[in-house]
Amino acid sequence: MSMHYETPQDAEDAFYDALEAASLEALMAVWSDTDDIGCLLPMYPLIRGRQDVTALFTHLFARGQGVPLTVTHLDWVLTDTVAIHHVEEQVIPPQAGRPPPQPFYATNIYRLQDDGWRLITHLNAPTPPPQRGG
Amino acid sequence: MSMHYETPQDAEDAFYDALEAASLEALMAVWSDTDDIGCLLPMYPLIRGRQDVTALFTHLFARGQGVPLTVTHLDWVLTDTVAIHHVEEQVIPPQAGRPPPQPFYATNIYRLQDDGWRLITHLNAPTPPPQRGG
Repeated sequence: MSMHYETPQDAEDAFYDALEAASLEALMAVWSDTDDIGCLLPMYPLIRGRQDVTALFTHLFARGQGVPLTVTHLDWVLTDTVAIHHVEEQVIPPQAGRPPPQPFYATNIYRLQDDGWRLITHLNAPTPPPQRGG
Repeated sequence: MSMHYETPQDAEDAFYDALEAASLEALMAVWSDTDDIGCLLPMYPLIRGRQDVTALFTHLFARGQGVPLTVTHLDWVLTDTVAIHHVEEQVIPPQAGRPPPQPFYATNIYRLQDDGWRLITHLNAPTPPPQRGG
């Protein structure tokens, strides 16, 4: 699958669509086809390199189930060739009425390459626990 | 304090030195003097903007105590104007013989500006828990 994303946002939309659809091919089309990519998912070690990132999502998608997320924009940091997006990810729970899990921060970094904007880094970190009522 | 860091590594060295020394002035000299900076420390919300980042470290340093860290290199991702450094941070415990806390991942992003390489993003995320012996 060869895609050309005109903007970092186009690449990001494709990334979350592929996560939701559990499409490995679509997902790996968003990642840069280079070995300096890195991915940090909750409770996982930092995964580096095209081969290991592919293996990670192959493993995640092996159940055939996607990960639908509500993504809330926090900040873009833009340079001519690198775009950094801070967002908050909220997993949409499979069953209505169940309380959603704690959201995660995600930082997505895109680089403008000959083949368009590509994801080079996806990092998750927990949000602080909710404040307890007094 | 006006500094000029010739390389991203120079800026990073100054950052961790300032953390250890609890020097707010030295620390804020490493951060870009712009409002698109972001800082995510363990258990804190994502802090954005020069003013709020200054307030965060003012609060952290208020006890007059620095944070000595052992920093282990994982990966550099380099473009002409942006440098991304993935490292592992290990707090050096104040008392010898006490087990160190779980290390953290850190991702530091530097941008080449008119005033040299400056820190624009510092993100922490937990490393996975150690594997239990079986």
